[in-house]
Amino acid sequence: MAASRELRLVRKELVVDLGARSYPIVIGSGLLRDGELIRRHLAGRQVCIVTNNIVAPLHLAAVRDTLPAQDLDVCILPDGEAHKTLDSYAMIIEHLMSHRHNRSTTIIALGGGVVGDVAGFVAATYQRGVAFVQMPTTLLAQVDSSVGGKTAVNHPGGKNMIGAFYQPRLVVADLDTLATLPDSDYRCGLAEVIKYGVIKDRAFFEWLETNVDALLRRDTAALSYAVLTSCSTKAAVVAADEREEGVRAILNFGHTFGHAIESLTHYECLHGDAVAIGMVMASDLSARLGLLARDQARRIKELLASFDLPVTPPGNLNAEAMQQAMGMDKKVLNGRLRLVLVRALGDVFVTDSFDHGALLATISAGGRLCDG
Amino acid sequence: MAASRELRLVRKELVVDLGARSYPIVIGSGLLRDGELIRRHLAGRQVCIVTNNIVAPLHLAAVRDTLPAQDLDVCILPDGEAHKTLDSYAMIIEHLMSHRHNRSTTIIALGGGVVGDVAGFVAATYQRGVAFVQMPTTLLAQVDSSVGGKTAVNHPGGKNMIGAFYQPRLVVADLDTLATLPDSDYRCGLAEVIKYGVIKDRAFFEWLETNVDALLRRDTAALSYAVLTSCSTKAAVVAADEREEGVRAILNFGHTFGHAIESLTHYECLHGDAVAIGMVMASDLSARLGLLARDQARRIKELLASFDLPVTPPGNLNAEAMQQAMGMDKKVLNGRLRLVLVRALGDVFVTDSFDHGALLATISAGGRLCDG
Repeated sequence: MAASRELRLVRKELVVDLGARSYPIVIGSGLLRDGELIRRHLAGRQVCIVTNNIVAPLHLAAVRDTLPAQDLDVCILPDGEAHKTLDSYAMIIEHLMSHRHNRSTTIIALGGGVVGDVAGFVAATYQRGVAFVQMPTTLLAQVDSSVGGKTAVNHPGGKNMIGAFYQPRLVVADLDTLATLPDSDYRCGLAEVIKYGVIKDRAFFEWLETNVDALLRRDTAALSYAVLTSCSTKAAVVAADEREEGVRAILNFGHTFGHAIESLTHYECLHGDAVAIGMVMASDLSARLGLLARDQARRIKELLASFDLPVTPPGNLNAEAMQQAMGMDKKVLNGRLRLVLVRALGDVFVTDSFDHGALLATISAGGRLCDG
Repeated sequence: MAASRELRLVRKELVVDLGARSYPIVIGSGLLRDGELIRRHLAGRQVCIVTNNIVAPLHLAAVRDTLPAQDLDVCILPDGEAHKTLDSYAMIIEHLMSHRHNRSTTIIALGGGVVGDVAGFVAATYQRGVAFVQMPTTLLAQVDSSVGGKTAVNHPGGKNMIGAFYQPRLVVADLDTLATLPDSDYRCGLAEVIKYGVIKDRAFFEWLETNVDALLRRDTAALSYAVLTSCSTKAAVVAADEREEGVRAILNFGHTFGHAIESLTHYECLHGDAVAIGMVMASDLSARLGLLARDQARRIKELLASFDLPVTPPGNLNAEAMQQAMGMDKKVLNGRLRLVLVRALGDVFVTDSFDHGALLATISAGGRLCDG
């Protein structure tokens, strides 16, 4: 009884409210094996699972065995951001054509953000759109990329330059898949989890402060709460602004700094790590501008550090390169660099009006960020 | 005064009613030079005109001169359906990236259906969607492909297999562009015009019967009425069913037969010609099934013929190949071949339930279609 009771306790569902395009996010243990749940969201008999060569050996058999009655085939991408390209997209399209998938097929993305983004763009455009199910297997994908309908591939000239807004029919966040995640990937997911506390939910931020140990040992109950709360916040923001014409931009907290760091390190700094540093920089700038109390800025930095996330820009980044990478040459001149700044834990806003000198001080602060 | 009065008379506007995605279709003379109209629908300063090597010498200068204040560049595709490919799509994306187009750019499609479909798919997916304006320069594109938000490219395995539903901000149907259209292209547009009479509007069908000469000499007033009425019908159907989940399928009247003919003739039979033959076959089948009065079926055939459209399948098409091409092997067996059939002029319906023998008789009727 104890086991089944715990299973019930950790299975939770929330709905992304987008009218006719609303869909559930189900969070819990053993979900990849829940055939009844998954079948309810398939469009027809045909299914194509898109996954990669790292995830397939771990989880593909479970999903395949769960759907014995489906006309199911599998398309396996090589792992990594380097394969989030129009070529991978075209390869999946070829697969669907050669396996004669029709308009009532369902594409299941089983994997992290790259698999979800590429497979989602395929689902958005194959025969002008087919049913799509997300099965994120990384913490980052569970709390971020699988929710909200952004699909895309990269172009050599920029990340996510080609894509579509396209909502899935179902997101299945099976917490069991997080057990096998490398520490670095897990940590990167936690950076986004902390982001939700800062941008919208002070109580959640404080819950995170008191649950560091449980999360570090990947305790299922703690993870369930963290993923549910993160997805709830993201779902609410997306429901208010599906196509990022307004409030959705707050989800980019830390990301303008973070993207510059990723770019300058040629993506050797992982996305979550870069966002962690970016959040510290945005908090530091907010404090410098007198918007955010110094002790709150420090708590943001400390919470990130307690999860082993980096909180200082790489030593070899100089301030000038950082300005360049943030597009300041082009953008600040016509006043368009927009940043998400913090007024208090749980309260952020988007602005393109701030003191340039304070921004330069933040960029040059190095290890002294948030320590003033 | 007379000239300006006529200009006013032939300029008409209707709105495709899709809530937040509603947009106007403006029909008339001299519209490509109406900078005020076009500028009102641009998202920002950047504009990319996508056109082809046939249309560019005829109309590009007019549009370019109309928008002197815009940061404008041009991407020219080779003419023809053979270039409605993922390669052309990728080429336009490259162009946009290398010319640094941002999220607030506007893509203008200046040309026929191929240009509109490819450029529209680019607009739907560049940076997850940018502003899009259609300037159709063929009759077929003005009454059909530029209205309704279907964008796509072909795959070697099938037409329009990759695409998106994406609505433009504005459709500008400049009737002056029809003056330079080759007869064969003009005729193909008329096939779709007649389609609207058959599927929804008996009065329009009868107006067409009495205005054959005016339309054949491309009289602007007659064309204005024909394009406006066609677009109104299409707009109403699209507004009722944007993503073709129901009634929108009636727009495929004649197209299931037509696509089979196009495919069997390796696209030597033009789309409009094939649809004309397909409409005669669908009318013949409707009459055989006792749904449609024989004299009405005959009027459909005669109206098509009066515009020099073909009304008999190519002689070298045998009935068996036709059945195959219509997908009857796969589809009829599980009862899924859906056809649009006619109950009366202006009244059609979609069904997958009809007598197979009657269909075979239609396919085998050759020159005796609708003559029973």
